[in-house]
Amino acid sequence: MSVTGLLADIQQIGRDATSGGYCRPVFSTAEMDLRAWFLGEADRRGLDVEIDRNGIIWAWWGAPGPGSVVTGSHLDSVPGGGAFDGPLGVAAALAAVDVLRADGFTPQRSLAVAVFPEEEGSRFGIACLGSRLMTGKLSADKARSLTDASGTTLAEVFAAGGVDPRHLGRDEDALARVGHYVELHIEQGRGLIDLGRPIAVGSTILGHGRWRATVRGQGNHAGTTLMADRRDPLVAAAQMVGAVSSLARETDDARATVGRFEPVPGGTNVIASEVRFWIDARHPDDAVTLALVERFRSAFEAIASAHGCTVEVREESWSAGVDFDPGLAARLSAALDDAPLLYTGAGHDAGILAEFVPSGMLFTRNPTGISHSPEEYAEDADADHSAFALAQALRGLLS
Amino acid sequence: MSVTGLLADIQQIGRDATSGGYCRPVFSTAEMDLRAWFLGEADRRGLDVEIDRNGIIWAWWGAPGPGSVVTGSHLDSVPGGGAFDGPLGVAAALAAVDVLRADGFTPQRSLAVAVFPEEEGSRFGIACLGSRLMTGKLSADKARSLTDASGTTLAEVFAAGGVDPRHLGRDEDALARVGHYVELHIEQGRGLIDLGRPIAVGSTILGHGRWRATVRGQGNHAGTTLMADRRDPLVAAAQMVGAVSSLARETDDARATVGRFEPVPGGTNVIASEVRFWIDARHPDDAVTLALVERFRSAFEAIASAHGCTVEVREESWSAGVDFDPGLAARLSAALDDAPLLYTGAGHDAGILAEFVPSGMLFTRNPTGISHSPEEYAEDADADHSAFALAQALRGLLS
Repeated sequence: MSVTGLLADIQQIGRDATSGGYCRPVFSTAEMDLRAWFLGEADRRGLDVEIDRNGIIWAWWGAPGPGSVVTGSHLDSVPGGGAFDGPLGVAAALAAVDVLRADGFTPQRSLAVAVFPEEEGSRFGIACLGSRLMTGKLSADKARSLTDASGTTLAEVFAAGGVDPRHLGRDEDALARVGHYVELHIEQGRGLIDLGRPIAVGSTILGHGRWRATVRGQGNHAGTTLMADRRDPLVAAAQMVGAVSSLARETDDARATVGRFEPVPGGTNVIASEVRFWIDARHPDDAVTLALVERFRSAFEAIASAHGCTVEVREESWSAGVDFDPGLAARLSAALDDAPLLYTGAGHDAGILAEFVPSGMLFTRNPTGISHSPEEYAEDADADHSAFALAQALRGLLS
Repeated sequence: MSVTGLLADIQQIGRDATSGGYCRPVFSTAEMDLRAWFLGEADRRGLDVEIDRNGIIWAWWGAPGPGSVVTGSHLDSVPGGGAFDGPLGVAAALAAVDVLRADGFTPQRSLAVAVFPEEEGSRFGIACLGSRLMTGKLSADKARSLTDASGTTLAEVFAAGGVDPRHLGRDEDALARVGHYVELHIEQGRGLIDLGRPIAVGSTILGHGRWRATVRGQGNHAGTTLMADRRDPLVAAAQMVGAVSSLARETDDARATVGRFEPVPGGTNVIASEVRFWIDARHPDDAVTLALVERFRSAFEAIASAHGCTVEVREESWSAGVDFDPGLAARLSAALDDAPLLYTGAGHDAGILAEFVPSGMLFTRNPTGISHSPEEYAEDADADHSAFALAQALRGLLS
């Protein structure tokens, strides 16, 4: 079946009818439906399915064993995300198996299609959670105690999803089976549009991190408190958001975003007592990212002080920049008509695995350049072409 | 029982152990517990209790009938509110009955202690909802279809609270019974501190309103979208918050607040596609309030445009300024050692009733001047004095 046909089968799952955006948090009903869909597609192809101790699904063509070739992506989404981020790579992997078989290709190694849970980190706050657990980059104890916005622990959510949380953690066997990992993904920028090409090969992932700022002031009544008597943390935090944007604009190639902003208590007629907001910051040079965050911190302290407030900035996660295996990237590019190499500002499971095994990525052209939004998309021809490109890339690794 | 004793009995209900703030939305478990506590206290005093078609509780000393004297307040709170806003007036009303009886006073009219639901508007967005329904200022149809943050309708919530939503609406009988209404409330400012007095009489309520601003931009990926390519509604909205604060500061006696601010979708690694925030604006001169909101609107449009975004500003509610009955205010002041007259920036059920029946308010000194926050409080002596002051005020009206 074509990639567009596969994606059409899941286009209503977790979709908000008004905005057209997808909400598919890990182990939600929507994501469980997608996992069930994947199991059905694997079964239809006669692939042997295994769900490992970290909730990663593996669908095997050939016997599982060391040095296999693995491809895949994820099915969870950010809130209000698009249809392609994750599912395109999964659908392309399934369709690539069909392409190779239709060609009568006989692999010399086993191939697995993998689905990683909680790639977006939108439920438990840590992106690439499945691959971090498998590689031991995230400890099982820390993972189990993470909570979602409703206060439910990851241990409870995974248990409800059929994954026993007592067995989470570094998985030597699973890791040893991955000889090469190749992940295809919708491009999250305009690189291929500018180049007029349908497919690129990933070169590096920008280092990136998340920081949480907490601004504390004085809660009070909105109607009775004179402007001069206020220590309003929301006014201070708003000015900090402006500082994040303008300091990032002053730094070539930097990107810094506040997308989550939570006043406490959040009532219309209440001056907030506290505001929490999160900063996502990235730059090709990790040292520049970290220096930029220090500039944010200094600016925040001056702003807080001017408003009679205090501010605290804490790192929530940090991922150093990742270079994909240059030899593998060159092989992939050569197999794909000298596909251009592009870096990406987004994190991916391939970036986590790259520290442990030769890993690479393919990017499919996205006419809007937009991602994490309903506007993210691929032309049908490009989506379907993804399966042929991925098959071509895998063919070399499986020969 | 003293006012402090009554309040001590409910001090744990709906209290957050960490912040010390109260969360008592109308017909939540916490507010239902408070309503049950009130019924018990009314019963203990032999007051006849009635819950009317709008969910207002009436506890009668004497037979219900036209021209009675009514006192009371509310038990619901804003999120993270204090212990006194509402409950002080209810406890003082119960204790005032005790004071009058202990004095052997024989009322010439009936007295009712009333508890109004959803005074804060923190669950369904419309403040003084109970008194607005009773007076017909809010239509039953509109009320029934209001929804809370979880999407539950007011009709469902009232039904679960034991109030049949089919019977909501203007209540001529209830209104006719109110000859005078007097509400005692914690002061929500520093007027009495500055005057060195324990009790004031309300003169006027500032006109006030709520407006909702919706800023729309382009949702996108936080890591892959260059700063120059962004149309980020959160950066625009943050600048608008700054404009609200600075324009309000430029206008003598104005107060304008953004306490609720909601990015959509609200993910850390997602540039928001939309931000909704709410403005609460008040000034002693209604025309100045409305002109100020027009200045906000112009400033917002310029800011939105500079960020490639759009903005829409909609009025959600507007209450014109209210003058309490001057004759009643003078009587109350005279009964209380020439208590000073103070205006308030906060809305109250007494302000809604003032359009229909002679209504007045008493304010109890608040050492912090802070309200809608755990820091709101009254000294024990002032809280207990409230019952004697209210009893003294009611004595004249009941004679």
